[in-house]
Amino acid sequence: MAIDTPALLIDGDRLRANVAAMAAAARDGGVALRPHAKTHKMVEVAALQLEAGAAGLTVAKLGEAEVFVDGGCEDVLIAYPLIGDTKLERLVALARRARVAVALDSLEVARALAEAGAEIRVRIEVDTGQHRAGVLPGDVAALAREVAALGLHVEGVMTHEGQAYAAEDLAAATHEAAVKMREAAASLPDAVVSLGSTPTARFAAREPGVTEIRPGTYVFQDRTQIAHGAATPKDLAAFVLATVVSRPAPDRAIVDAGTKVLSSDRLNAPGAPVDFGAIDQTGWPLVRASEEHGIVAVPPGASLRIGDQVRIVPNHVCPVVNLFDEAVVVEGDREIARWRVAARGLSR
Amino acid sequence: MAIDTPALLIDGDRLRANVAAMAAAARDGGVALRPHAKTHKMVEVAALQLEAGAAGLTVAKLGEAEVFVDGGCEDVLIAYPLIGDTKLERLVALARRARVAVALDSLEVARALAEAGAEIRVRIEVDTGQHRAGVLPGDVAALAREVAALGLHVEGVMTHEGQAYAAEDLAAATHEAAVKMREAAASLPDAVVSLGSTPTARFAAREPGVTEIRPGTYVFQDRTQIAHGAATPKDLAAFVLATVVSRPAPDRAIVDAGTKVLSSDRLNAPGAPVDFGAIDQTGWPLVRASEEHGIVAVPPGASLRIGDQVRIVPNHVCPVVNLFDEAVVVEGDREIARWRVAARGLSR
Repeated sequence: MAIDTPALLIDGDRLRANVAAMAAAARDGGVALRPHAKTHKMVEVAALQLEAGAAGLTVAKLGEAEVFVDGGCEDVLIAYPLIGDTKLERLVALARRARVAVALDSLEVARALAEAGAEIRVRIEVDTGQHRAGVLPGDVAALAREVAALGLHVEGVMTHEGQAYAAEDLAAATHEAAVKMREAAASLPDAVVSLGSTPTARFAAREPGVTEIRPGTYVFQDRTQIAHGAATPKDLAAFVLATVVSRPAPDRAIVDAGTKVLSSDRLNAPGAPVDFGAIDQTGWPLVRASEEHGIVAVPPGASLRIGDQVRIVPNHVCPVVNLFDEAVVVEGDREIARWRVAARGLSR
Repeated sequence: MAIDTPALLIDGDRLRANVAAMAAAARDGGVALRPHAKTHKMVEVAALQLEAGAAGLTVAKLGEAEVFVDGGCEDVLIAYPLIGDTKLERLVALARRARVAVALDSLEVARALAEAGAEIRVRIEVDTGQHRAGVLPGDVAALAREVAALGLHVEGVMTHEGQAYAAEDLAAATHEAAVKMREAAASLPDAVVSLGSTPTARFAAREPGVTEIRPGTYVFQDRTQIAHGAATPKDLAAFVLATVVSRPAPDRAIVDAGTKVLSSDRLNAPGAPVDFGAIDQTGWPLVRASEEHGIVAVPPGASLRIGDQVRIVPNHVCPVVNLFDEAVVVEGDREIARWRVAARGLSR
């Protein structure tokens, strides 16, 4: 297997196992699964998720929604407030081709959507503790009433409980978010109540009142998910294949994977060391990185030689995928496909 | 001017002024200017640099070299050790079309180059204190002899004195690197002695024995360069244009520029606060960011409203450019061009 580096490597067997496991967890919990496609950005992976029973997809941006609808997805949630004439025109066109929902947390965005006349459903974004976007649970009823008065269909509430990444007890953090979401949805009959994050997904699926989960990272997993106990090393399905290009010192190896392919995202877990990923086979961390250089701390006598290839486990796989135009899909030592990262870089 | 966001905005007037100023600094110091094109990744910017007298370009990767040679550049330094059959085949082909030099710090890479039979020049990479790749100054003579014995033409030495970013005194750090480079080049007659980094460029141009400088970031500048006194806010020529999409709290605004367009690179200066950029007009920092959300800390009573557009100054502009497919070039309030980021994502 001769693959030029750096390359984004996907383990096809593990990917399918991860897709099946989360689909089963959603079924067992009696909730809908609407995976966040921002992790993989590939129509081939979306197809696997939909075949496994996903109710639809979640995306962050309109451009991503367009790619996945083009790719055959018929039901998409854009978990992001859309504003601006260009975007609203595209949204109206997209809503003619697929079932589209959008998240919002303000009357300003709702007014713009209503004026544009898009055939869409609306979800109120709730801040359950991350303090990013979203209204507080107690403010949902009033906003939902005002949005409905504009003629928009409010189908439910959604949150990204990103605060769980800082929590010591994931189950407790998920429960706390679910309690807030039940409060948020209290005034809405038959509301979709949607929580989204990979480490909380299995807990959320079993919380009363939750009707939908939106995990993303589970398809590939990464070092952050392992740090939170949401994955084991055997679940890892995406790596950066890199080559050792320099051995300037006995305790240092340079690989051709820096922040231009690994991103600068740190491991997102309390107390985690600052590094840029680690070599899969040995656990040796990339202790420093610049754009094209990963600097690996190696033990004395390490056999890493110039020209050797290594697989690097990303800290956070989503931005890593976004830095590649294509992924090399392998099964064992065999390359079986190349998939285009079709929604790469679509920030609009 | 209606520009959909997030967008990479280039101030054409400031870009030209930055290009002219660095060209003048090199001329005044009597050194060659070989700008690092990884910052801009655009053939239009390369053309401005070459028109202003640059001796050639520096790139990090072979794929970047191919783009700039395609775009008309006739002399390119690939400041990275090349290894692997695929890359060597491409290098041989490229060397038939342009004058190509490559950096290396090992006999392994030199042997592969010699076997491939590429018509190239070689520069020995020297570690002057960054402790990334590179041989120590005292080891250059021996390696250069062995490389020459393989039939390769060793034209000189190069370093990236990245350690200067951690230095308190840029002039002193540059001098220290220059001293090491003179030692490194002592055995090489008529050697190219090349230093590369934006904050040290003006000092390096005046150091005895230095024959070439390779600054990159100077074309656009960024917050890191301002922190080091290598730029002022009036030199900033690249911004991320973003829209306020949520105002969830009086002290918080959410803009549609997160790490997917700003990267996660922190300000690279001793003691700098952790943030993800700052709004140009007000200085308000993005105190947190996720992939699609920039979280701006705003003072009470701030007039930022949903739908407002803001210009964000990147901490480190190079990875930001790499996250866009095109740049919007403006002069004052007028859009004058769209330039393709032709070398985006070319890590191989």
